[in-house]
Amino acid sequence: MDKLRGKENFAVIGLGQFGGSICRALVEAGEQVLAIDKNEEIVDDFMNIATRAVIADAEDEDVLKNLSLGSFDYVFISIGEHIQASIMATLIVKELGAKHLICKAENSSHARVLEKIGADKIVQPEKDMGKRVALHTLRPNIVNYLALNDTVTLAEVKIENSAFDGHTLAELAIREKYDVTVIAITRNGRVDVSPLPDAKIHLDDTIAVVGDATNVDKFNKETD
Amino acid sequence: MDKLRGKENFAVIGLGQFGGSICRALVEAGEQVLAIDKNEEIVDDFMNIATRAVIADAEDEDVLKNLSLGSFDYVFISIGEHIQASIMATLIVKELGAKHLICKAENSSHARVLEKIGADKIVQPEKDMGKRVALHTLRPNIVNYLALNDTVTLAEVKIENSAFDGHTLAELAIREKYDVTVIAITRNGRVDVSPLPDAKIHLDDTIAVVGDATNVDKFNKETD
Amino acid sequence: MDKLRGKENFAVIGLGQFGGSICRALVEAGEQVLAIDKNEEIVDDFMNIATRAVIADAEDEDVLKNLSLGSFDYVFISIGEHIQASIMATLIVKELGAKHLICKAENSSHARVLEKIGADKIVQPEKDMGKRVALHTLRPNIVNYLALNDTVTLAEVKIENSAFDGHTLAELAIREKYDVTVIAITRNGRVDVSPLPDAKIHLDDTIAVVGDATNVDKFNKETD
Amino acid sequence: MDKLRGKENFAVIGLGQFGGSICRALVEAGEQVLAIDKNEEIVDDFMNIATRAVIADAEDEDVLKNLSLGSFDYVFISIGEHIQASIMATLIVKELGAKHLICKAENSSHARVLEKIGADKIVQPEKDMGKRVALHTLRPNIVNYLALNDTVTLAEVKIENSAFDGHTLAELAIREKYDVTVIAITRNGRVDVSPLPDAKIHLDDTIAVVGDATNVDKFNKETD
Amino acid sequence: MDKLRGKENFAVIGLGQFGGSICRALVEAGEQVLAIDKNEEIVDDFMNIATRAVIADAEDEDVLKNLSLGSFDYVFISIGEHIQASIMATLIVKELGAKHLICKAENSSHARVLEKIGADKIVQPEKDMGKRVALHTLRPNIVNYLALNDTVTLAEVKIENSAFDGHTLAELAIREKYDVTVIAITRNGRVDVSPLPDAKIHLDDTIAVVGDATNVDKFNKETD
Amino acid sequence: MDKLRGKENFAVIGLGQFGGSICRALVEAGEQVLAIDKNEEIVDDFMNIATRAVIADAEDEDVLKNLSLGSFDYVFISIGEHIQASIMATLIVKELGAKHLICKAENSSHARVLEKIGADKIVQPEKDMGKRVALHTLRPNIVNYLALNDTVTLAEVKIENSAFDGHTLAELAIREKYDVTVIAITRNGRVDVSPLPDAKIHLDDTIAVVGDATNVDKFNKETD
Amino acid sequence: MDKLRGKENFAVIGLGQFGGSICRALVEAGEQVLAIDKNEEIVDDFMNIATRAVIADAEDEDVLKNLSLGSFDYVFISIGEHIQASIMATLIVKELGAKHLICKAENSSHARVLEKIGADKIVQPEKDMGKRVALHTLRPNIVNYLALNDTVTLAEVKIENSAFDGHTLAELAIREKYDVTVIAITRNGRVDVSPLPDAKIHLDDTIAVVGDATNVDKFNKETD
Amino acid sequence: MDKLRGKENFAVIGLGQFGGSICRALVEAGEQVLAIDKNEEIVDDFMNIATRAVIADAEDEDVLKNLSLGSFDYVFISIGEHIQASIMATLIVKELGAKHLICKAENSSHARVLEKIGADKIVQPEKDMGKRVALHTLRPNIVNYLALNDTVTLAEVKIENSAFDGHTLAELAIREKYDVTVIAITRNGRVDVSPLPDAKIHLDDTIAVVGDATNVDKFNKETD
Repeated sequence: MDKLRGKENFAVIGLGQFGGSICRALVEAGEQVLAIDKNEEIVDDFMNIATRAVIADAEDEDVLKNLSLGSFDYVFISIGEHIQASIMATLIVKELGAKHLICKAENSSHARVLEKIGADKIVQPEKDMGKRVALHTLRPNIVNYLALNDTVTLAEVKIENSAFDGHTLAELAIREKYDVTVIAITRNGRVDVSPLPDAKIHLDDTIAVVGDATNVDKFNKETD
Repeated sequence: MDKLRGKENFAVIGLGQFGGSICRALVEAGEQVLAIDKNEEIVDDFMNIATRAVIADAEDEDVLKNLSLGSFDYVFISIGEHIQASIMATLIVKELGAKHLICKAENSSHARVLEKIGADKIVQPEKDMGKRVALHTLRPNIVNYLALNDTVTLAEVKIENSAFDGHTLAELAIREKYDVTVIAITRNGRVDVSPLPDAKIHLDDTIAVVGDATNVDKFNKETD
Repeated sequence: MDKLRGKENFAVIGLGQFGGSICRALVEAGEQVLAIDKNEEIVDDFMNIATRAVIADAEDEDVLKNLSLGSFDYVFISIGEHIQASIMATLIVKELGAKHLICKAENSSHARVLEKIGADKIVQPEKDMGKRVALHTLRPNIVNYLALNDTVTLAEVKIENSAFDGHTLAELAIREKYDVTVIAITRNGRVDVSPLPDAKIHLDDTIAVVGDATNVDKFNKETD
Repeated sequence: MDKLRGKENFAVIGLGQFGGSICRALVEAGEQVLAIDKNEEIVDDFMNIATRAVIADAEDEDVLKNLSLGSFDYVFISIGEHIQASIMATLIVKELGAKHLICKAENSSHARVLEKIGADKIVQPEKDMGKRVALHTLRPNIVNYLALNDTVTLAEVKIENSAFDGHTLAELAIREKYDVTVIAITRNGRVDVSPLPDAKIHLDDTIAVVGDATNVDKFNKETD
Repeated sequence: MDKLRGKENFAVIGLGQFGGSICRALVEAGEQVLAIDKNEEIVDDFMNIATRAVIADAEDEDVLKNLSLGSFDYVFISIGEHIQASIMATLIVKELGAKHLICKAENSSHARVLEKIGADKIVQPEKDMGKRVALHTLRPNIVNYLALNDTVTLAEVKIENSAFDGHTLAELAIREKYDVTVIAITRNGRVDVSPLPDAKIHLDDTIAVVGDATNVDKFNKETD
Repeated sequence: MDKLRGKENFAVIGLGQFGGSICRALVEAGEQVLAIDKNEEIVDDFMNIATRAVIADAEDEDVLKNLSLGSFDYVFISIGEHIQASIMATLIVKELGAKHLICKAENSSHARVLEKIGADKIVQPEKDMGKRVALHTLRPNIVNYLALNDTVTLAEVKIENSAFDGHTLAELAIREKYDVTVIAITRNGRVDVSPLPDAKIHLDDTIAVVGDATNVDKFNKETD
Repeated sequence: MDKLRGKENFAVIGLGQFGGSICRALVEAGEQVLAIDKNEEIVDDFMNIATRAVIADAEDEDVLKNLSLGSFDYVFISIGEHIQASIMATLIVKELGAKHLICKAENSSHARVLEKIGADKIVQPEKDMGKRVALHTLRPNIVNYLALNDTVTLAEVKIENSAFDGHTLAELAIREKYDVTVIAITRNGRVDVSPLPDAKIHLDDTIAVVGDATNVDKFNKETD
Repeated sequence: MDKLRGKENFAVIGLGQFGGSICRALVEAGEQVLAIDKNEEIVDDFMNIATRAVIADAEDEDVLKNLSLGSFDYVFISIGEHIQASIMATLIVKELGAKHLICKAENSSHARVLEKIGADKIVQPEKDMGKRVALHTLRPNIVNYLALNDTVTLAEVKIENSAFDGHTLAELAIREKYDVTVIAITRNGRVDVSPLPDAKIHLDDTIAVVGDATNVDKFNKETD
């Protein structure tokens, strides 16, 4: 796959907060990125960031053709707010033959149009992030979580209840009491994966557990 | 904590894509939410969503005082684009004494101002989401990942390489070959946590592994 | 077909020059028409023209649903200039299940988007009319013409050459000389269909001929 | 007339959808066309299309005089929306002595002003096209039609009724039953002009008939 | 004629500085005036000035018809700056049949359009007044003048040269020396028409003389 | 005075309809005129009209000083609509020491401010012209008139009453009947000043009469 | 004077930062104040502050007359930025006969116009305050100063030089060394006016001295 | 201190009335000043006033860094009206390490934000000046005053009461009657500091007195 990666091309159309962040992350990961925006000032800022940065109107078919956008593996269309431009650019880039089209949508109607036109993946950054932030607020000492399926959750929980402090997993009988499995214990940046039953837990440790979401929530509340 | 939760209050100022999404997620989680925006039409839309929805100018100190925003546990300031309004609202709500202030920032300067004024948490949704989307593109068959610390990563990897199909963990010797630990196997929505060595892997399974990021990446590429 | 016609419903979204003209023509033909525009003043003007005229924002899904647009046989989306609104309205009406969607496009990119979203027929009035006007200018005494296939044309030609005046079709030997068939002679608003060889032609008659386009053009020039 | 045509000159003022379409059609027909617009970007697009393309303000008398617009045979004034500019350009070009002035009007008042100022022909593309589209919808299997006079219509009707399939004109007795004359039968792009009574009709044939509009409509309904 | 005057009707469309001034002057002369403007505030101001003052859009044919503008003897169209509205109003009022149409034009093209549409008299107040002011500046002690034909001028000249003071017309031999005829002498608001040769002139008298423009100018300079 | 005229200087600030007309009239009269406007396009137009035309902001003191406006004999400030600019320019030019300041005012408040600041003469072109036009309409066959004092008027009256045709002044006894004095008779562009009693009047002659305004009006009505 | 004060009336036109501050200071001093602004929201805010607060357009003569502004003793015209409105309001209020007119000017030209129109006092708050702030920065330990004439200054100087600490005025020989007179010593909010020679000075005392500006400056530097 | 002053640097960001006035005052005092504004025209005006004048966007961190604003001793941020820019500039300049930050605030919320971000001194010129002007109006013959502490005031009072005229301080017994101390007498621009008891007072003298504010007020009223 590395070799294939070598051939990959990334283009980002629209260099606002979202597109700009994509561009920076890809470049930091060592990828070649073509950065496109219609605003000269913004393109200037990306001259030193992207492999190539060009001023272009993404609604102009000839311009996108001349940039050979059809030959790119991944094209991100992250045009802010101007929904019409986003739709037109998606149409054109799709017709030019780009392999993967990842598009930002402003709202759900916009998302459905993009899907019908052929976008491969559609992101609504503010909406998706809002949900994440809300959920995190509701479970303040869950540092991170993954939903493995509809019911099973993997969560990193911070231990703030001194009742846990200095006890081994065996003593705490976490699996028995809460029906969750401890997968890792992180302390001061060091991770103990698949800890043994005699592993001790301390205040401020972050422990990764897997189990039913309700059990994980129950366990989480005890640690508070 | 549930009882305390009963006393909690949530207010969301600014009901755009980000604030609206927060509001909806909180209401779906059963919380009482006060929704505030200066745009009448938007507030109308939230009449049936939030516990209470009011039209208010978040730069007007008297208005925020009358809404008792100081007595809320969590106030989200998700004012879009109008940076000055975001700053003024943050200042006023902080001075009124709200416990937790979670604010959306448009850019890093905005974020620093909010921090100095007293915001407890600052989110840049487009920037944060852009990074996520970029990284996901680079590791297309990693469904999800968590960084447990700077080096150790937990990743859900989709098996698309037929060489793995029908083999047990023991046969595949994943830990030996890649130095990663298999924590769970998800197949058709069912999760096998801490699978035994004789657990079999099939194409399209998603398996959760923990290990050094470089090892996880190496393993990920083999599964493609 | 008449009975089916009785069940038909027509809706026109966007009451500018194009949509307004559609609405008027349908009403004059005795059809029931629902007229929709977001501009109050325009809707007022159509109160006495359409069966029903309502103010509505065609980008608002709930509004279009409440108007039962999905149950109409023909929906014309003739939203002027605001391409985004045109696309969104088309998406929504299509999803609501309207049988035939006839949409106005501002340009060819717009047309392609509408096609992908599911418009059944797309019209570009200014472009289509421009072509007609240009062609008519090039053949000034062809009153009307139809292209029966790629080569055969049916044209109504005005006789302005006195050499034709007072002669019978037989004398003029039109079919022999120009290889075109005279189908009808119109004089002072009276039509003689399939005229006999002894029918006379006079100055200012309009005669309908069928034949190869080049022959028709040749004949046309002789009549000038 | 060909020779005269050689001397003809065409100018198009206003290169929007309507004017641009006129310009393209004339150039495709081999004519020399001067294309004029006040928008630099649009003029750039027509550099490779028109014989000559110039940026000019059509309200500036000196500019139009320098372009010798008075010496053109046909001047199209297709200025979009800006009614005042359309009127002023028409006034000036008329005074400069152009032979034929074909003008686009936005509405009927505009049309009347243009007429008084001296426009030779006035077109309202959206209104005219709207009427056509509406009528076509009402008679879906009439492919094309011409009104020869107030009552007599020539229509191309598509045969979708299997009762006609495989029968000769004589058997079907079309003239006797419907009082319309069959002028041509088009099948797979081939045209049989003035078909004989033993000519057969098949499904999906398009047949051109002439007759009273009500008779043509009646016949049309039978073919559905 | 007085009786006819009784039947006359005056309407003023556009109540800016020019139209407002017309309206006031007519009312002060005892006429019945209908005052029309699209601006509510301005119409309010004329409620107490005009016989009737109404808010109306002068581009709306129905509105002007309902006001019976066709039955007025004099309609003044003094719409400021918005040339299109001025043209449309002129067209409509003319078609409605008003007897005399006096229109204000912004520039000479505007004036020519108005003329073609049927305006009976066209005024360009700023241009006409500019010329008057300039000419007066050049002949500072000519109080007023009339051009009787291309060469003969009647001017009121102020006497500021003491050489004239206390002398009779006979003594001064004005006709002999300057070839102009003294028609009247105005002193302290009293006028002596056709003064006799022994009439005396004093400093600051204004005397009306008739003669060739060059002679009048010559005389004028002597009086300075 | 001619010699002094040689030294005179005229400047016109603001080259709209009013200022432009002043500028043209002065130049046609052979004067040297400095033309000033802040609009480049307008100044370009006056390059060939005025002695000198410069682009300048009339609110900028340094600019006006550099143009030596203080040394001009006559400065016309004809800045359209932008009242503040008009006031500031008047202030500055007055302070710089220009001899005569003639200013255009938009309304009476504006006029009073200009007067207090030191304008020597203030004109309201639209208002003044409106009054003239209104009065002329009320006395349609008075071609021109001058008010010699509050009661005595000199008017040029057109003869449209055939009862006057072919009669001498003596026969008509104009002075006796109407108490007005005939000062001149103009026929076909030729003027007969101080006509004798046996001078004949014909239809369409224009005769200049002097007398009380009411008498002149009475005479005027008889001529209609 | 108190009694006269009782009869005084204050009006403030324009309730921005400057006018609002004037209004508040006058009300706090017990005066009756009429507050005027054209912005409804601002007037609402002053309902509870001023004696009376009204919405009014200060360019409308009738409005100001109805408010009897001519009968006020002090009228403040603090209209922000809109110079024309400031000038017109000043003109009208002056003509109405207000006793004292204090006006805010945006720049020096504005100030001169206001003066000519009759403003009694003109303030340029930003300019005046800018000068104060700059001078204070240059003499950081001068707390306050007054210029008694062009050369003699009275300054409050803070003592930050320990060489002065604990010494009497006599010991320090301030008058002898710096040629300035000590008028008062302020310590911890208590003032010793006309201190005797044996009065002691301590660090952080503020002492008021009078003398030539250069001497005061010299003394000031010694205290740092 | 002079030597330290030599090293000082002053920068003024925002060259409106306030910032421009600061800049001028500092330059007149002989300081080196860097003047910054984003408006080219304004910067041009300061080219000849400030030591250096540059066009720069104060919200652009890199720009401010390149100007080395962190090394200045005094930075004035006097950005008018655009509160966001003011906040961002203050944040950046503070982080760059400038020693003293003096900022203009538009209102009290703005002021509080600036304070939290680290502004050392905050000025509200219009508000502060408004208070001064109001107070001066209330004590019209107090020319100047200083509040030495909460109760003790030093005021310059103009003598307009003839009862004081020609009398010595001893005769008038000012200290005895009003409990205030006369510190200086200013007459025709000459100052007599610490006047002796036999010093005479005349009409129009300005005398500086110190005492309790109420006593000073009482004395002030007697002098009127």
